Amino acid sequence: MSAPLHEDRPTGRGPALPDTQQGMRRRNLARVMHAVRAEGSLSRAAVASRIGLTRAAVSTLVDELIRTGLLEELGPERPGRVGRPGSALAVSGHGPAGIGAEIGVDHLAVCAMDLRGEVRARAVRHGTNRGRSPEPVVAELAELIDEVVTAARGERLWPAGLAVAVPGLVARDGRTVVRAPNLDWLDTDLGALLPVDHPLTVDNEANFGALAELWLTEGTPRDFLHVSAEIGIGGAVVVDGSLLRGTRGFAGELGHVPVHPEGPACGCGGRGCLEQYAGEEAVLRAAGLELGEDRVGLLAGRAADGDEDVRRALRDAGTALGIALTGAVNLLDPRSVVLGGALAGLAPWLLPSLEEELARRTAGPACPVSVSPLGPQGPLLGAAHAVVRGVLDDPAGVATHS
Amino acid sequence: MSAPLHEDRPTGRGPALPDTQQGMRRRNLARVMHAVRAEGSLSRAAVASRIGLTRAAVSTLVDELIRTGLLEELGPERPGRVGRPGSALAVSGHGPAGIGAEIGVDHLAVCAMDLRGEVRARAVRHGTNRGRSPEPVVAELAELIDEVVTAARGERLWPAGLAVAVPGLVARDGRTVVRAPNLDWLDTDLGALLPVDHPLTVDNEANFGALAELWLTEGTPRDFLHVSAEIGIGGAVVVDGSLLRGTRGFAGELGHVPVHPEGPACGCGGRGCLEQYAGEEAVLRAAGLELGEDRVGLLAGRAADGDEDVRRALRDAGTALGIALTGAVNLLDPRSVVLGGALAGLAPWLLPSLEEELARRTAGPACPVSVSPLGPQGPLLGAAHAVVRGVLDDPAGVATHS
Repeated sequence: MSAPLHEDRPTGRGPALPDTQQGMRRRNLARVMHAVRAEGSLSRAAVASRIGLTRAAVSTLVDELIRTGLLEELGPERPGRVGRPGSALAVSGHGPAGIGAEIGVDHLAVCAMDLRGEVRARAVRHGTNRGRSPEPVVAELAELIDEVVTAARGERLWPAGLAVAVPGLVARDGRTVVRAPNLDWLDTDLGALLPVDHPLTVDNEANFGALAELWLTEGTPRDFLHVSAEIGIGGAVVVDGSLLRGTRGFAGELGHVPVHPEGPACGCGGRGCLEQYAGEEAVLRAAGLELGEDRVGLLAGRAADGDEDVRRALRDAGTALGIALTGAVNLLDPRSVVLGGALAGLAPWLLPSLEEELARRTAGPACPVSVSPLGPQGPLLGAAHAVVRGVLDDPAGVATHS
Repeated sequence: MSAPLHEDRPTGRGPALPDTQQGMRRRNLARVMHAVRAEGSLSRAAVASRIGLTRAAVSTLVDELIRTGLLEELGPERPGRVGRPGSALAVSGHGPAGIGAEIGVDHLAVCAMDLRGEVRARAVRHGTNRGRSPEPVVAELAELIDEVVTAARGERLWPAGLAVAVPGLVARDGRTVVRAPNLDWLDTDLGALLPVDHPLTVDNEANFGALAELWLTEGTPRDFLHVSAEIGIGGAVVVDGSLLRGTRGFAGELGHVPVHPEGPACGCGGRGCLEQYAGEEAVLRAAGLELGEDRVGLLAGRAADGDEDVRRALRDAGTALGIALTGAVNLLDPRSVVLGGALAGLAPWLLPSLEEELARRTAGPACPVSVSPLGPQGPLLGAAHAVVRGVLDDPAGVATHS
């Protein structure tokens, strides 16, 4: 987690900064933060040469970032160099932290991440949230958040913001869960249920999972399609390092792409959607198994043991994924497809048929498919890192909260 | 064509301008151009209040734009106002022009468009280009370009650039046609075949068609999916006012989204692609007709005359479009779908089954579908306007060519 990538330029997810002297200063503060973070440690002179500003201009920016606790000095650089020794700068391991939270169908999780990308505190609670109303679930989540924030404060970190990953569609307001079918939540305003002192962002788990791939996994391109699954199948589209959100915030709904147009009816109102072939429930049904709590563990265990029904069910799910992904790849022309979330654990049995299908439907070389090393951790880490990213992208914005 | 829309802010398609004083000045020149163009005519004071700069700063920018021939003064504003009369500014109807060209399967077309968006010269040649090698086709196009440029010079316009629309996939270099199946062209570098003195851009006809919708059609949202057809089916995705290009430049390939995964084999290597159900050739075949030159005219004529075979073929094509668009809408969450190109002329018979299919596969309200008023003119107008747009987005960049 400590080797951040793609850190050399702002994501553009921060507020649009006005084209004034003041806006330029704020953007340059962000450039300094990203430059230092990309290298781990860097002298003022090296920062100046990397971002193309004068040494004097960089010194003024660095002084401000040290004063607000976002950068720290590591002391004089190793001797033996020509000239006056400069002091190496590093991103502070104290100060602002991102609080990430996840509401899963079967668990709740919270973590605190410092600006360097290290998880410094964490809390998890297992147990189904299916069919529970939002109030007690969010109350339980608030307890975990308190626990993590208290632990973080003990490490001289303070929450710069809270980001919550949910298994459902989230409105562009970044706080309302419009529809989470596997929780049975509709139009749930988490902003009202979870009053916190710091900025709150709610987003779909696949979106945060995709951002975690982008920011925390080595080799992830800046344009890819992320596919994840719990009970539903989530997707997220990353274009030039940013999420494609869609007009309502619903983009990436791969689970309801028609695979066999006259196939089984789906909860969405359609027929033969991908979720009817490759969702966890569909796969369990096809394998003749019951829906329990550790569904992926059950499927992976049986498949590893050579259970032919389970292997066939997973092969067929891979084929359906391949058909849906062919359409998605044709529309989006991504650099790669990344399987994340629960799908990552089932990849050994899904991937061969998925790749075969994608290859036989593609004229040139097929779009490469990779498996996320973050797996089910992706959404939680992505949520925490989204807050961290907000600080790196507009350091002046967060300093006012400290 | 004289009522441009969405003109109030730069598209971001121009070169990324550096974050320096010089870059700020260039961006502010663009803001002035867009502000004046959006209103038709505007005083210096009104420009200043619209773009949030001082009157003095705007005057300096305006003087530069008048000097380089991009703005002109209309003379004193109507009397009766309080204070010293200001002179109204307008975008110049002389000076730089965008040259747009289109290589169609059955025609070649070229036009010159001034900065106001008016087409000032035009040339068209009919006749099939199918199976012809690129050299003679491009040589013929070059003659038409000369003809149009000569006519434009007679109107005191000079070419600021040339943009060529082609029915195929174009590499991100903006000059190489990677694959145009209905022309039988492969890896054709138009930059080498068409040596011109001014900047050249080559793009897919659906991309230019989509940009024409965005820029020239009232009411087009900034996020939409554009579908067009000649013999193939083209698609283009517009996100927040910009084309989604994909990593190779191939995004928007709606024609090869699988509709019935085990359907007829397609030239792309896949099976049951949308083009096998809704491409012009597929529709003619389904209606029992021969492939001729004016395919859309033939289909529209027969459908209007009540030919039941043609109507059924178009209904089925609409259903296939509805299935493919359901997947695309789920992935992209656009504000609307716009049918352009040849499809616009067949919309009365395609639209009912298309909309029915989209509605029955969508839980909430279905994505609205509209028909382009530009129809087959879209790609040519979009190409010419892309050059115009480049000038508006970076007026300082073009002034050096004058």
